[in-house]
Amino acid sequence: MQWYVVASLLTILTSSQGILTTLSQSNGGYKYDYATVPFLAEVFKLIVSAILLWRECKRSPPPKMTTEWKSVRLYPIPSIIYLIHNNVQFATLTYVDTSTYQIMGNLKIVTTALLFRLFLKRKLSNLQWMAIVLLAVGTTTSQVKGCGESSCDSLFSSPIQGYMLGMLSACLSALAGVYTEFLMKKNNDSLYWQNVQLYTFGAIFNLARLVFDDFRSGFDKGLWWQRLFYGYSITTWMVVLNLGSTGLLVSWLMKYADNIVKVYSTSMAMLLTMVLSVFLFDFKPTVQLFLGIIVCMMSLHMYFAPPTTLVDLPLTIKAAPESTVEVSVDRKTDSRASS
Amino acid sequence: MQWYVVASLLTILTSSQGILTTLSQSNGGYKYDYATVPFLAEVFKLIVSAILLWRECKRSPPPKMTTEWKSVRLYPIPSIIYLIHNNVQFATLTYVDTSTYQIMGNLKIVTTALLFRLFLKRKLSNLQWMAIVLLAVGTTTSQVKGCGESSCDSLFSSPIQGYMLGMLSACLSALAGVYTEFLMKKNNDSLYWQNVQLYTFGAIFNLARLVFDDFRSGFDKGLWWQRLFYGYSITTWMVVLNLGSTGLLVSWLMKYADNIVKVYSTSMAMLLTMVLSVFLFDFKPTVQLFLGIIVCMMSLHMYFAPPTTLVDLPLTIKAAPESTVEVSVDRKTDSRASS
Repeated sequence: MQWYVVASLLTILTSSQGILTTLSQSNGGYKYDYATVPFLAEVFKLIVSAILLWRECKRSPPPKMTTEWKSVRLYPIPSIIYLIHNNVQFATLTYVDTSTYQIMGNLKIVTTALLFRLFLKRKLSNLQWMAIVLLAVGTTTSQVKGCGESSCDSLFSSPIQGYMLGMLSACLSALAGVYTEFLMKKNNDSLYWQNVQLYTFGAIFNLARLVFDDFRSGFDKGLWWQRLFYGYSITTWMVVLNLGSTGLLVSWLMKYADNIVKVYSTSMAMLLTMVLSVFLFDFKPTVQLFLGIIVCMMSLHMYFAPPTTLVDLPLTIKAAPESTVEVSVDRKTDSRASS
Repeated sequence: MQWYVVASLLTILTSSQGILTTLSQSNGGYKYDYATVPFLAEVFKLIVSAILLWRECKRSPPPKMTTEWKSVRLYPIPSIIYLIHNNVQFATLTYVDTSTYQIMGNLKIVTTALLFRLFLKRKLSNLQWMAIVLLAVGTTTSQVKGCGESSCDSLFSSPIQGYMLGMLSACLSALAGVYTEFLMKKNNDSLYWQNVQLYTFGAIFNLARLVFDDFRSGFDKGLWWQRLFYGYSITTWMVVLNLGSTGLLVSWLMKYADNIVKVYSTSMAMLLTMVLSVFLFDFKPTVQLFLGIIVCMMSLHMYFAPPTTLVDLPLTIKAAPESTVEVSVDRKTDSRASS
């Protein structure tokens, strides 16, 4: 499969995720315990990966599987980073409002590119760096509140701690992504074997969170297995399957493409969700959304288009414009054209 | 002189123009007749150009001057286009509000590039086209009203005629610029001789407008020469000199650089004015302004930076990341990197 097919699929599924989650709510709240969703998604991913690995094992040659503890012990690390990230996220939201939080979330586009460069030592061209900045600016533009909308005075009026935590959150999110890419690419192990390790720890950490919630609430809401399928509708199940599927696609991209592809996929998904919300939820489109989409599309093209198609400047034609009767090309103009 | 020095000077003077004009107002209105300002600016430009031409004539070799009617008759055309443009502008404003009008004004960035390509047959690279679109998007973003600001419901709710006239206005503005560039570059005539012709017609057309205003108002406000210096303060004179100087710089750019350089200069001036207004007039900065400035800066760099500095992609390093222990580069990843 080509990486862009997987990336497009990820865009569509990530976008559906937002819409399905909204549809699964009743009267603006969840009838079910939302914390059970990521746990079931991890279990779903684990089952799918295990089946695929089992099928791969029956074929010859058997898949490459590193089973030493030295390798396996690296797989809980993404889960640990996400655990810290979730807590930082929670702390951030006690300082800043959701609009500011959402806008700060775009910082992770830039932090991912930075860590991608620093830790994975992947070089990006100047144009690609500019594309990354434009992607962050474009997504932010699309999210800026339109005039007349309420709760906008609070934007960027939070205490400094809020911004520091927001920065930390963006760094942790990027670190988790970059670390996962390192993990998936560090050897030629079967993708499914790597997934099985990743999701086993993922399921354990999510289960631990459910048990922790039980203790924190003093068992008021019942035990976790009692909450597991409570209030689940067909839409809730679709949310679980969708979340699981996006996770599997992200794993694939981490091994066969990279973090930047993932960042573009999820950013495009955010824009797609906003466009779909216009039709589905009577979301009022703003000029900012339109402008943000143009900037993101330009960024996409700048990053992925072959450089030769972008800058193939026919200098010969530029130096002698056909329309002029007596050609008068000045030294100063030339210095620009040839510089 | 290098083109970018002139372009920077144009940015500073154009930006000062907006600020000086605001400072020349008293109680939100003009004490003087604003229509006299462009007339005096044309006279100023004519005098400066005439003096410079006279100095040039005294030196040897004498400047190249085409005096045939076939050539001279082309010089009133920019004035005629501007006259039509002013009327279309006036008609547009009867349909749309000033915010929508201001935002539609950014269309002339794109129309200028299109006419530049069509009439002057100047080729732009794909990256430069993208830069042009981003410049228009960036300036528009910076102008989008922030939340809580009044009179924003009216944005893009005008009758269709308003948008048609706005488009026409953008095309006429671009046509005047592109035609002037054609005029200045069509032969090796002295810049000052070309200016003298251009500004003689400019002064005549502006004078005709003042006389026309006299007739239209039924001589209620007195004859034009009575209004000429009436209510002029030192700031008003600075507005005149500033407007005249920007005109001279634009002429220079049309001959030795091009319309796109002028478009960038004036767009940067618009942003500079907004930034200066924050300090001078307690203008409240918006997130949009900040985002718009980033997009415009990226656009500037994309358009003018030497292509080799932008896309010099070290593919060799990308194909073999140093951090991975066992390198696992997949065919699919490779197809992206080499595509």
